[in-house]
Amino acid sequence: MKLAVNLLSSSPEPDRIVAAAARLCYSDVSAEELLGGLESEKIRGFLKHLRKSGHLSPFEHVSFTFAVDGISRVCSHQLVRHRLASYSQQSQRYVAMTGPDVVVPPSIRDEPGLKERFIELVAACHKAYGEFIEKGVPREDARYLLPHGWQTRLVMTMNARELHHFFRLRLCRRAQWEIRELARRMLALVRCEAPLLFDLAGPDCLVDGECGESNPCGRPYESMEELLSDETVF
Amino acid sequence: MKLAVNLLSSSPEPDRIVAAAARLCYSDVSAEELLGGLESEKIRGFLKHLRKSGHLSPFEHVSFTFAVDGISRVCSHQLVRHRLASYSQQSQRYVAMTGPDVVVPPSIRDEPGLKERFIELVAACHKAYGEFIEKGVPREDARYLLPHGWQTRLVMTMNARELHHFFRLRLCRRAQWEIRELARRMLALVRCEAPLLFDLAGPDCLVDGECGESNPCGRPYESMEELLSDETVF
Amino acid sequence: MKLAVNLLSSSPEPDRIVAAAARLCYSDVSAEELLGGLESEKIRGFLKHLRKSGHLSPFEHVSFTFAVDGISRVCSHQLVRHRLASYSQQSQRYVAMTGPDVVVPPSIRDEPGLKERFIELVAACHKAYGEFIEKGVPREDARYLLPHGWQTRLVMTMNARELHHFFRLRLCRRAQWEIRELARRMLALVRCEAPLLFDLAGPDCLVDGECGESNPCGRPYESMEELLSDETVF
Amino acid sequence: MKLAVNLLSSSPEPDRIVAAAARLCYSDVSAEELLGGLESEKIRGFLKHLRKSGHLSPFEHVSFTFAVDGISRVCSHQLVRHRLASYSQQSQRYVAMTGPDVVVPPSIRDEPGLKERFIELVAACHKAYGEFIEKGVPREDARYLLPHGWQTRLVMTMNARELHHFFRLRLCRRAQWEIRELARRMLALVRCEAPLLFDLAGPDCLVDGECGESNPCGRPYESMEELLSDETVF
Repeated sequence: MKLAVNLLSSSPEPDRIVAAAARLCYSDVSAEELLGGLESEKIRGFLKHLRKSGHLSPFEHVSFTFAVDGISRVCSHQLVRHRLASYSQQSQRYVAMTGPDVVVPPSIRDEPGLKERFIELVAACHKAYGEFIEKGVPREDARYLLPHGWQTRLVMTMNARELHHFFRLRLCRRAQWEIRELARRMLALVRCEAPLLFDLAGPDCLVDGECGESNPCGRPYESMEELLSDETVF
Repeated sequence: MKLAVNLLSSSPEPDRIVAAAARLCYSDVSAEELLGGLESEKIRGFLKHLRKSGHLSPFEHVSFTFAVDGISRVCSHQLVRHRLASYSQQSQRYVAMTGPDVVVPPSIRDEPGLKERFIELVAACHKAYGEFIEKGVPREDARYLLPHGWQTRLVMTMNARELHHFFRLRLCRRAQWEIRELARRMLALVRCEAPLLFDLAGPDCLVDGECGESNPCGRPYESMEELLSDETVF
Repeated sequence: MKLAVNLLSSSPEPDRIVAAAARLCYSDVSAEELLGGLESEKIRGFLKHLRKSGHLSPFEHVSFTFAVDGISRVCSHQLVRHRLASYSQQSQRYVAMTGPDVVVPPSIRDEPGLKERFIELVAACHKAYGEFIEKGVPREDARYLLPHGWQTRLVMTMNARELHHFFRLRLCRRAQWEIRELARRMLALVRCEAPLLFDLAGPDCLVDGECGESNPCGRPYESMEELLSDETVF
Repeated sequence: MKLAVNLLSSSPEPDRIVAAAARLCYSDVSAEELLGGLESEKIRGFLKHLRKSGHLSPFEHVSFTFAVDGISRVCSHQLVRHRLASYSQQSQRYVAMTGPDVVVPPSIRDEPGLKERFIELVAACHKAYGEFIEKGVPREDARYLLPHGWQTRLVMTMNARELHHFFRLRLCRRAQWEIRELARRMLALVRCEAPLLFDLAGPDCLVDGECGESNPCGRPYESMEELLSDETVF
């Protein structure tokens, strides 16, 4: 299964809704008028101010729902640690794992001999998985044999504030490569829907101009283009 | 200021998105196919199953954003106790209170003599508020004199799972009348956008057929129509 | 590694603190007097009332911290889906997996021939894991080969309200056996510290006297003793 | 009612528990050994590392419960906007407001003539509150007349991570003076229980050495002593 990250759904007019919510905090405007007269220049101004002042709560009013196929359960286990988000993940209790569907880390894939051994062991485990089930072992138990790299599918929703936080942590070069690639694709998708909300998002180096890690990588991102094109193929 | 509750924004096709997320958990369907073949009969089936089995996490993938004008700060203080939601509220630090804009409880409004006294005291406080500001008191301090019934505006976002929880608590006849009226209007609005997600929502009496309160009111709601038409005018 | 569940820390006098917080809501008692005059009969009364009326928010004021060794990553992946809790989990990026340390599901362990095959495959994967690392593959990549049943360690904190919710879901006979055994041990531990808070906790059948599942197991628990002694050995 | 902020309860040995949880993430130590050999020098090292690297999740394992008397409902409305915390607040539905108990802002208290007018209006509102109740108006409605500055009592629990966040926002000189004074007292209290966890906490100026506000106050705190002694009397 190839990695696929799709935007399943998103709040309509996200830039405008966030600007309207922010506007309400600071001016005496009625619910009916809230969306009126918000030209894009004004929206840009509001959003810039929010980001600069760190008042990110209005960013919570818009959400993005992703359908993700083909990340490993190593990656999904990390992902669901982000608690301010919603997840629906394919169940290994109810769905039979027909694969073998596994993520092969580039460091293994590119090393002569290792990839073959990896694939061979995965296939042996998956074969046993099938035979165990035939012998009456429940799927939910047979899966104890599947490797961590086994692929999963999930639907995930995050609001724009949490997405900014997620991008800050997970687009850092120190982040694990698989969740980093997931984050990179997510950022590319939300930038199409909400160009102003995400005109600047990413790790400390890109957003703040300096690294917050205790042990910096030494290769700060210098532009959004560099970040967005830094693909990890697996 | 009259109470106004508008739906500022909502996730597109909410019934369908929730059904798609639920489907993913139990079947081997790719991200690309997730929305395909979901006719309304199938959606209805999925959503009914989720509600019956109490597996409400897929309901989190869709959100609703309300613009609310004219609730009192009594009501907003209760409202923001719902922590799984996002709020942007008009600031009394930055916005001058030009009113007098106050919610008059029906029990005071309908009692001869009380309403007049209430309005008179509110006006006296608001007059002093203005004079204090003229004398250099910051707005954020002068407001200490404004009554609890003073009106506020806010933008609020809740997902469909939290909305179900909110409706269960706040549409009960035991709930405070002002937040109950707010909830009633919110329910009417989301039922237009997501008729299947909210075909059944409300207090225990309506949803479960029995009351969960330790001290029941004795007048259970018998139908959605009864609930939706039970307006409190203020 | 054998499963070990220890109570690392817990709020002092949990029954009393919850009762004090509840008392404040309904009476005019000062911060200084709040803990005074709360004999155990009075505490019992408060807590019973809270549980019966479903007003569980005061239960949030006390927390329990567990150190857990030897659950599988199948189980930890489920566990961390409980978002109203805090987790610190052993990192597979930083810590070398010296095992082989794996949870063998009872359905595999008890079936002649299956256990041997399971153990053999796990050992083969773990051997490759070690060799991959020797050849320069980072730990975080080599682990893609480790089976889902691989064991992990974590420290976890939940408050008493979330624990009640957790026990309701995870002590049901329909829950996956590994997380159910974890929950059973956790319940036994917190009952020692907070006998009144947890005098009744568990699945619907035990707490409400009826099942809320769409597909009941048909074997409702009839007493706390039955629940607490229903050990799953693995 | 005078402002009173008491520490009602706190996790035992908070510095040590956080250090133990952090240690687990990075080393192969069993649940049983987790607390062993953690001398204060080692604890200090762990906590310093966590703070410097921004890995604050282990701070969530310890919590602090405060009993607060005498803040205004202006302040409590702001306070409960912090959603990663637990609150039990005195109910104005169930408890009669016997006062008059009100917070007088310093800017009003110190201005000749204003304080008297403020107190007089508050007394008039409170008198009407009592008379309305005598005439059959429910408490929950009569309170619509009480001023925003009316005092309340609450019990509140926050974990150490949220407390750090709270102190950062609310100890800034730009924060509203009442919640700032509350925060100052809370910080003094938790520093006694967890000196290492809170050896450095407060606004950006003190913790980071530079201001993150878009509109800085120009008077950065230069030491913890300065911050802790900066009392606002009201």
